[in-house]
Amino acid sequence: MKNSISIPQRVEWGDCDPAGIVFYPNFFAYFDRATWALFLLAGLSLEAMRQEYGAVGVPVVDAQATFSVPCRFQDTLTLTATISAWGRTSFTLTHEIHNGEALAVTGREVRIWGLPHPTVEGRLKAGAIPADVIARFQG
Amino acid sequence: MKNSISIPQRVEWGDCDPAGIVFYPNFFAYFDRATWALFLLAGLSLEAMRQEYGAVGVPVVDAQATFSVPCRFQDTLTLTATISAWGRTSFTLTHEIHNGEALAVTGREVRIWGLPHPTVEGRLKAGAIPADVIARFQG
Amino acid sequence: MKNSISIPQRVEWGDCDPAGIVFYPNFFAYFDRATWALFLLAGLSLEAMRQEYGAVGVPVVDAQATFSVPCRFQDTLTLTATISAWGRTSFTLTHEIHNGEALAVTGREVRIWGLPHPTVEGRLKAGAIPADVIARFQG
Amino acid sequence: MKNSISIPQRVEWGDCDPAGIVFYPNFFAYFDRATWALFLLAGLSLEAMRQEYGAVGVPVVDAQATFSVPCRFQDTLTLTATISAWGRTSFTLTHEIHNGEALAVTGREVRIWGLPHPTVEGRLKAGAIPADVIARFQG
Repeated sequence: MKNSISIPQRVEWGDCDPAGIVFYPNFFAYFDRATWALFLLAGLSLEAMRQEYGAVGVPVVDAQATFSVPCRFQDTLTLTATISAWGRTSFTLTHEIHNGEALAVTGREVRIWGLPHPTVEGRLKAGAIPADVIARFQG
Repeated sequence: MKNSISIPQRVEWGDCDPAGIVFYPNFFAYFDRATWALFLLAGLSLEAMRQEYGAVGVPVVDAQATFSVPCRFQDTLTLTATISAWGRTSFTLTHEIHNGEALAVTGREVRIWGLPHPTVEGRLKAGAIPADVIARFQG
Repeated sequence: MKNSISIPQRVEWGDCDPAGIVFYPNFFAYFDRATWALFLLAGLSLEAMRQEYGAVGVPVVDAQATFSVPCRFQDTLTLTATISAWGRTSFTLTHEIHNGEALAVTGREVRIWGLPHPTVEGRLKAGAIPADVIARFQG
Repeated sequence: MKNSISIPQRVEWGDCDPAGIVFYPNFFAYFDRATWALFLLAGLSLEAMRQEYGAVGVPVVDAQATFSVPCRFQDTLTLTATISAWGRTSFTLTHEIHNGEALAVTGREVRIWGLPHPTVEGRLKAGAIPADVIARFQG
């Protein structure tokens, strides 16, 4: 499926907290990493997004995660990101993180298609997702 | 209310991403900071939790956030954490982050009362929350 | 002295590693935080730097730190940043971090005065530091 | 050479700051990642270090870096870590980070061989590095 990617993630020393497990906000950084990897796979580097579509990012408007199995330093995880729904200006990714065979984390990101704000420099606003972008993740 | 705390948070350079806004996982780090500040206010440093109750942490099992208003470098935020529900071994915190007057982020953490695992060193398991702990946040 | 600032820093849970001490790269994030606080004290928010001087940042070109005393979760540190030398396009900050009475970390940052690159959008280059900027930290 | 390793590192969105370049403390996190990868290559996972030598980590006592070439989101870096000197209780790593062909960052870490503190639980102290450990990185 072109709407999904799985990539490995070694748990780094600095990702973990004094309890010896991944500091939970870092799982969201893993989600973010998997999302960008999925976009790269679809040919959408940030540079390509800018040049071909004028988009400047895909900011997150909602995120959630459930943590079931601890992940520790030097564990090798598998990050799986899947685009599960397309809206007009937003889309939803579901995330799974496996630690070996165990499903350790499940979650969700809702992101918008970010265009430059028409009047305020350095700001962005949600825009309609081009059909051509959606097509890259289908079929 | 003893079950709630509000603390200031300046947005740091390293908290922000190339879009110039807070990298969203860092809002969960802000949540974590506010939760520990609330526990400190109740007299529960990690050291006190260990010595008085044998607890070794309050790991997060579920987290969610909705991001409504961008937060930028050098913005001064107000982090508000409130314990909104107590279960037998878990409890729920609601989080609000204001950017000036604007409610920028709302969210939730579910945490467990973490006791040392009875047989595996360095691991923990959920335990019953002492009534005395709950009482510290009431009245 | 207007060329120096000291600010408190509570050690957060997510700042620490499985050894229970601050993950050493985070001390450099503390340095960065203290540097920006010093600039703010001198009236140089990033916004002011942009509007008054056309500068877009003060990127680090060299950094060093020596770690002498462990810093742990919930320790209250004092971050001290001092501008110790001005060059034509660069300047040096010395950093000290005290943990209670103990001098825990000493270090150094060399930063440049960052102007927008004349031809490449989104890039920057070192520029001459305005005398007026230096004067803000003197006397 | 068994005393050196090179690994790839994609620059992630959350590694970068509002200037669009890697937030400099994150280069030290890259150093740390490369150091642990070198130890893993030598058969020294943290677990192996604990079980075979009673060591609990290799904490950094000094670190330095020089930043020459900007590194941006989605750049693919090569991290090279080399153990360049062995002392009785400490050792030195030199680090290089290439961005494509360009040498972007050079640096150094001095680390100690960390043994559990004999009397204070949860603390560590420097110990003599076993000859067998050094031999793993030679020949």
